[in-house]
Amino acid sequence: MYKSEQLAHSLKQLIENSTWRAHEKLPSLRQQAEQSGLSLITVMNAYQELEAQGLIYSKAKSGYFVAEQHSTRLNPVLAINDKIEINSIVFKYLKSLQSEFIIPLGSAFPNSQLLYSPKLIQSLGQLARQRRSYEQTPSLPPGNYALRKIIAQRYAMQGIPTDPSDIVITSGGLDALNLSLQALTQTGDYILLQQTIFYGAWQAAERLGLKVITIPEHPEHGIDLAAFEQAILKYPIKVCLLMLNSHNPIGFTVSDEIKLKIAKLLNQYQIYLIEDDVYEELYYDQKKPLSMKYFDQQNWVLHCSSFSKTLGAGFRIGWVYAGKFSENIQHIQLMSTLSVNPFIQNALVEYLSHRHYEKHLKTLRSTLQRYKKQYFNYFKSHLPEQCKTIYYPSGYFLWIELPEYMDSELIYQQLLQHNISVAPSNLFNITNQQNHFIRINCSFEMNEKIQNALDKLIEIVKININQ
Amino acid sequence: MYKSEQLAHSLKQLIENSTWRAHEKLPSLRQQAEQSGLSLITVMNAYQELEAQGLIYSKAKSGYFVAEQHSTRLNPVLAINDKIEINSIVFKYLKSLQSEFIIPLGSAFPNSQLLYSPKLIQSLGQLARQRRSYEQTPSLPPGNYALRKIIAQRYAMQGIPTDPSDIVITSGGLDALNLSLQALTQTGDYILLQQTIFYGAWQAAERLGLKVITIPEHPEHGIDLAAFEQAILKYPIKVCLLMLNSHNPIGFTVSDEIKLKIAKLLNQYQIYLIEDDVYEELYYDQKKPLSMKYFDQQNWVLHCSSFSKTLGAGFRIGWVYAGKFSENIQHIQLMSTLSVNPFIQNALVEYLSHRHYEKHLKTLRSTLQRYKKQYFNYFKSHLPEQCKTIYYPSGYFLWIELPEYMDSELIYQQLLQHNISVAPSNLFNITNQQNHFIRINCSFEMNEKIQNALDKLIEIVKININQ
Repeated sequence: MYKSEQLAHSLKQLIENSTWRAHEKLPSLRQQAEQSGLSLITVMNAYQELEAQGLIYSKAKSGYFVAEQHSTRLNPVLAINDKIEINSIVFKYLKSLQSEFIIPLGSAFPNSQLLYSPKLIQSLGQLARQRRSYEQTPSLPPGNYALRKIIAQRYAMQGIPTDPSDIVITSGGLDALNLSLQALTQTGDYILLQQTIFYGAWQAAERLGLKVITIPEHPEHGIDLAAFEQAILKYPIKVCLLMLNSHNPIGFTVSDEIKLKIAKLLNQYQIYLIEDDVYEELYYDQKKPLSMKYFDQQNWVLHCSSFSKTLGAGFRIGWVYAGKFSENIQHIQLMSTLSVNPFIQNALVEYLSHRHYEKHLKTLRSTLQRYKKQYFNYFKSHLPEQCKTIYYPSGYFLWIELPEYMDSELIYQQLLQHNISVAPSNLFNITNQQNHFIRINCSFEMNEKIQNALDKLIEIVKININQ
Repeated sequence: MYKSEQLAHSLKQLIENSTWRAHEKLPSLRQQAEQSGLSLITVMNAYQELEAQGLIYSKAKSGYFVAEQHSTRLNPVLAINDKIEINSIVFKYLKSLQSEFIIPLGSAFPNSQLLYSPKLIQSLGQLARQRRSYEQTPSLPPGNYALRKIIAQRYAMQGIPTDPSDIVITSGGLDALNLSLQALTQTGDYILLQQTIFYGAWQAAERLGLKVITIPEHPEHGIDLAAFEQAILKYPIKVCLLMLNSHNPIGFTVSDEIKLKIAKLLNQYQIYLIEDDVYEELYYDQKKPLSMKYFDQQNWVLHCSSFSKTLGAGFRIGWVYAGKFSENIQHIQLMSTLSVNPFIQNALVEYLSHRHYEKHLKTLRSTLQRYKKQYFNYFKSHLPEQCKTIYYPSGYFLWIELPEYMDSELIYQQLLQHNISVAPSNLFNITNQQNHFIRINCSFEMNEKIQNALDKLIEIVKININQ
């Protein structure tokens, strides 16, 4: 055993037998080195090992502290990821989607033929010919007032009182997430993510140098509330970033009951939530699922959404319900993208001011529902029984569970040889667990070409199972 | 005297009498504390004081080192700005420009009536009606190939061999600067800026937590080469960010001779240059000024530009000649804005593929020259003789020097009462020196309203002089 491991081991005993109590400060690195006669480096390694095990936590400039102990303390689903390096994986994956010959079952974007509504194209065409559409210079943050007003009204329709000044327009949904996270955190802060989540959340954490705690998905409820509270108790978490409606990639929508409980916990422990809700409009039920803003009494929630999944990602228009953080976020925008294209904002105002959008959404939802059902039935009847196709009634993703011993990255690589892309689960989960899932984009009409692609996928899965 | 000051004083003597030599490592904080019997905090304060005086410098994870000593060592024009807080000033200033009733002599943007060329509007109008203009999803970094090819050809026309793969399209010029700076630096790195420069450079440095060294403007050459070399010798500068053509706010263009020397220094000392060249097309001479890329043999220069000052800031299209850093910058884009609006990129390709742009630029340049001359003559004949109007033959800014005892921020405030904006020099210079300048935007036709505004400006300057 290395000296650092020996030290870690004996310190661990002090914590486990409660000689050291929760939130008690550990001796400084130097004190510990002097006491133990070990080198500073050895002590630091031991402390880092204990931190990785979740037994202690560090606070910038204050040192190390004993974490809260729980009977499920060593629950492996709580993972600290000090250094995240998902970006290169995502980069390669997105580049692989760029070829025009690829069948994009791995794409995150809905089939563009279902978006870009003709009425919107008409508005764009009309406005594009008028120079005043472009001229609002400087079109500064927080963005077009009329557009913010329309967005505010849509919140109000769901029973969430909203003022246009609460809304900041952003260059798409990812920009909204990034700006929110930047406004609420500093390098080294702890944030909480779902174990499996849209890779943009990992990328944002990587970019800002944040420490990530993950909680597992609950097989039934989507969110594992017990793990959530446990993580909050154990780590000095400042911000959660969660997807609760039509979760990407899995697809679940969390119940109102659970959302209410999360809201109470946020308030109780004074933790911010950045809610990534870009799929909020793609529900199949009669009623739109509520966002966490509905349950948020004290401004702990920053709600991020966009028009990318309903009108088109090419517009690069998203927003954040920033509330009291509006000015802070505008400051960060001024230092980066400066402003959002005024012409597109104008065209959206024109389009959204009529009933076109609701009609478009209705058609979009029923088409996605029909397609997804078709894909689901196809997989159900053709995939080997060791596989499970997970269907939730919203969005356009199917989440396929392969046998646990399989690595979906390999399936992805093999399909790529045939110009077919799928999204392997290591794009959404960096803990190296649960690497046997793939996400399928079902927003493409099931023609011969698509069916051949699905058949190839099924064939390759079968080959890998038989090996 | 505090203990830390005493320590700083005695260490300073060791450096000045050359007991400690340039680039020699100082004792670590802990060693120094043990040797001197002082606390770690006291030692740290002393080291930070010496660092602020430019006598020593720090390297991340390596400790402190003795800086190069020069006879002009205490030259006050080299300022370290550990903590920059210009963003709030800029935010207030930009917000003050947003009212539609304001006369925007303080605006950074050219009069939009001179931009948004009718032929471009026509292209936009045509493309806007076709859904394929928007659909290229995901329209990922590095951006539209045809657009990058056209930009590469424009470099080639100036004798700079360029491949489309060298170019990355960005959401405007500020985004290009930010991405470049992010790609080349880490928190705590030293960068070099001109003492007076576009506030976006300060904002970028603030956002990334960089240490800034400034060099003064040379009254004749624009860049003070001696100060430049001195700064490079004295500090471990990693990146310079400079404006050398139609400098904002002052207006000068640096000669080819000086540019060549800068290029040699970059190569000699292995320092990167981010060149902010967004005004490159607004020269009045026969020949476009060369960019630093022309003199750059070894890929030390990242050249940033945009269409904001020639076609319209509302398009949010810029680019960086990133060369070997292209992939690095694309990674950062993927984590933030994701991509640039594909429709606008398509429309620019359509427009730039014909000769419209050259014609438009020719008209734009001659109009700006005519207007600027008018403003210059007006100020020359009406401003009190204690003021100096500084004219350079390019762009659309005049730089007015008020008597040294005046604070241009006050003039700005007083004019704002009359719904007139000007840009005070504290937006461009955070060293609290040279605060007696204002920048005037001369891109508006001198009608009665503008003339009244200029008269009000002159009146307020006169009142302040007589006080």
